[in-house]
Amino acid sequence: MSLQQLVAELGGELHGDGQVLVRGIAPLETAGPGDIAFLSHPRYAQQLAASQAACVIVAPAMADAARERGACIVTEAPYVYFAQLTQLWKRRLGSGRPAGIHPSAVVDPSALVHPTASIGPLCVVERGASIGVDTVLASRVTVGEYCSIGARGILHAGVVIGADGFGFALHQGEWIKIEQLGAVRIGDDVEIGANSCIDRGALEDTVIEDGVKIDNLVQIAHNVRIGRHSALAGNAGVAGSARIGEHCTVGGGAVVLGHLTLADNVHISAASTVMRSILQPGQYSGVFPIDDNKSWEKNAATLRQLHKLRERIKSLEQHLQNKDT
Amino acid sequence: MSLQQLVAELGGELHGDGQVLVRGIAPLETAGPGDIAFLSHPRYAQQLAASQAACVIVAPAMADAARERGACIVTEAPYVYFAQLTQLWKRRLGSGRPAGIHPSAVVDPSALVHPTASIGPLCVVERGASIGVDTVLASRVTVGEYCSIGARGILHAGVVIGADGFGFALHQGEWIKIEQLGAVRIGDDVEIGANSCIDRGALEDTVIEDGVKIDNLVQIAHNVRIGRHSALAGNAGVAGSARIGEHCTVGGGAVVLGHLTLADNVHISAASTVMRSILQPGQYSGVFPIDDNKSWEKNAATLRQLHKLRERIKSLEQHLQNKDT
Amino acid sequence: MSLQQLVAELGGELHGDGQVLVRGIAPLETAGPGDIAFLSHPRYAQQLAASQAACVIVAPAMADAARERGACIVTEAPYVYFAQLTQLWKRRLGSGRPAGIHPSAVVDPSALVHPTASIGPLCVVERGASIGVDTVLASRVTVGEYCSIGARGILHAGVVIGADGFGFALHQGEWIKIEQLGAVRIGDDVEIGANSCIDRGALEDTVIEDGVKIDNLVQIAHNVRIGRHSALAGNAGVAGSARIGEHCTVGGGAVVLGHLTLADNVHISAASTVMRSILQPGQYSGVFPIDDNKSWEKNAATLRQLHKLRERIKSLEQHLQNKDT
Repeated sequence: MSLQQLVAELGGELHGDGQVLVRGIAPLETAGPGDIAFLSHPRYAQQLAASQAACVIVAPAMADAARERGACIVTEAPYVYFAQLTQLWKRRLGSGRPAGIHPSAVVDPSALVHPTASIGPLCVVERGASIGVDTVLASRVTVGEYCSIGARGILHAGVVIGADGFGFALHQGEWIKIEQLGAVRIGDDVEIGANSCIDRGALEDTVIEDGVKIDNLVQIAHNVRIGRHSALAGNAGVAGSARIGEHCTVGGGAVVLGHLTLADNVHISAASTVMRSILQPGQYSGVFPIDDNKSWEKNAATLRQLHKLRERIKSLEQHLQNKDT
Repeated sequence: MSLQQLVAELGGELHGDGQVLVRGIAPLETAGPGDIAFLSHPRYAQQLAASQAACVIVAPAMADAARERGACIVTEAPYVYFAQLTQLWKRRLGSGRPAGIHPSAVVDPSALVHPTASIGPLCVVERGASIGVDTVLASRVTVGEYCSIGARGILHAGVVIGADGFGFALHQGEWIKIEQLGAVRIGDDVEIGANSCIDRGALEDTVIEDGVKIDNLVQIAHNVRIGRHSALAGNAGVAGSARIGEHCTVGGGAVVLGHLTLADNVHISAASTVMRSILQPGQYSGVFPIDDNKSWEKNAATLRQLHKLRERIKSLEQHLQNKDT
Repeated sequence: MSLQQLVAELGGELHGDGQVLVRGIAPLETAGPGDIAFLSHPRYAQQLAASQAACVIVAPAMADAARERGACIVTEAPYVYFAQLTQLWKRRLGSGRPAGIHPSAVVDPSALVHPTASIGPLCVVERGASIGVDTVLASRVTVGEYCSIGARGILHAGVVIGADGFGFALHQGEWIKIEQLGAVRIGDDVEIGANSCIDRGALEDTVIEDGVKIDNLVQIAHNVRIGRHSALAGNAGVAGSARIGEHCTVGGGAVVLGHLTLADNVHISAASTVMRSILQPGQYSGVFPIDDNKSWEKNAATLRQLHKLRERIKSLEQHLQNKDT
């Protein structure tokens, strides 16, 4: 594919020879003379001069430096341009999933699967479920009864939509099952990573709004609602009835406890545990800092007396104050 | 279904018109005039008066307030009553799993599957495994060789019972596999959430006792034993040879290290890590409190010097004591 | 199997009657008179005298004590010997997986599956993937397009190799998908636990080197590289582009953030979060110590003011210094 063709498809301002052919996309650092690369952050500017890439996608601020090096495409948002380029590349490779239902999939006759959707090998789609336009179930995905997936969704291998929520009533020391009578409703343009699980609601539905992106091995409990364009990284867990706003991010391994509310634009750092509602946008963290084991042991042991240390400081302060007066 | 029929099936003391028809079960707050709702906790008492529900299930203490509002069913344990109601509802909807083996499942001829059990689509039951009375394998469940599941169990989609435990001997820097020769034995009335894993034992069996409830994406390592009626929430992990007592709860994302013992009635908060045996019943926690990122950074940095801070407090105390004497 | 036959196969110095038959392998503590047991650590020496085992595998240092008790096999590394014994036992039981492709598996005609490999029931092997000599895909494993698995690998049930990495460009509040154009390359002698996921790289490949062992429900993000003979325990997560050296261990539930480097021989304790690169070998930890809930609450509340406590200590010190001078 020539640089000229590429710019004709994706836009951007090309500097250099449009006849140059691009054979691959590569990181700036390892790109060879047949590759196109991108510079998304000024931090990596020093890699620019040294790069062997056939062409570099850059922001206007870097245009002069890039042109000095060789061919470049100037665009307002190089990282978005790069994303679009990967999509173009994949279409060219023809490696999408074919529309239709793989013969090994088990799809209930009452399920509504749009003809443009792709139901991969060994998927299960239960009765009354619906799968929207252009949505892909990669392989070995289960969509439970009466659950619905919107348009242009991607559910990776092993995803389970609509297993029972974890609901029990304690009765004389034993757990009585609360049948989960709700479903899962997933909007448009939602991507869900491999082996992630979204449980059906107890009475009402669990809801994933448009544009939400969920990584692998993420657990979404019953009655949760996740607002538009939020993203949750791998191994994260959201407990029952929590509400996550729009444009939020939840880092890998983070836990959101049940019945809490996260406002829009709240960002939870990886491995942090949300134990109270967060109503102000911002970045929130709560992780024990890692240290060599010996130092950690000392500090962790002291931490178990922290409250007493505070009392000791307080009494030192009072002691001095008494002496001064 | 009329209120009269409902009480005839489930008991409780009905106040109000028994001919009223119930069309759904809903939370107190969102229930419409065709719904039945419940009030499980006095905390929500203020929602009672405002509720549109056709009927509310309440404890005796709330009976007067409930009767003032309209129809109600009075019962000692409203939440348990509600659980039983969801079960009745589900039976009425006829949405259980059919007995028998789905034609797409792969069941070894030597496996013992009770005729009342339901083996869902694309399940794998290996040789010598046994599946008890009325037990349900939802879809895409694997039960490994010689593993046994008791009666009335529910294994949700993607569960893996009896994969090899993670056992290796280190030999000159390389890991030599320890073949896992035990199995998994699961009692009666056990429910296991989607994509959870219970490994087979190294020499003896991994054991899950009667009535245990396990949520999604939970990892139970080899040789673990979990006592009756304990419950583990999503993303929890229990390392090898740990013993969890009866009536314990382990919160979401919590980790129990290997070879530890938890006594009966021990409750571990979500996201906490159990690093020593816990022999007294009670609630235990260990989570770094979440904070805005800037505050967390300051506190986390200071935490790494906590032991030194303690030394400084100690020397301040000694200094003052010396001056005083 | 007689002790004599056993030593003929595995070596070691037999003391006692070689005609004794061994019917099982058991832990030292619970072994009966037909079992062989091992003593891997002097810590358990006191169990030795009381053991009913037909024979005990011991190190030279324990040989005298063991001979006093009865039959024993003396070997430099009893735990490694035990591992080899479990392998011998499994071969004798004939319980390996048969070579070939199970008829229920869905294998693309373009995939290269070695004839000695075992592709279990309901696995999916996509186009261009390759599976090496003697490698086992247990059941319900997905290997995505163009991913490769080396020789003697074991992929347990539900593993997903080559789902898309979690890559998006943020554009006006929405996530634009970055198609993941790399693959996953897995070396020889790699074992991967049930329902674990290894994502394909964005541009280059995700790489798992020879001899790596990965437990259940582990998430390996795109572009990660894990060095030879490293091991990761259950529920661990490694974020994008992290590099883990050789002979490392990552404990259960631990999280390694993206773009970090762990040198060779770095060991991360369970449930710890790696937030910076670690370039020195050693053991590293970062876990909030668990405590009864009340104590934890007090200490956690104080922790949120820790930085201020440090300031108060500082001002106490200055105050005293001023008074002294």
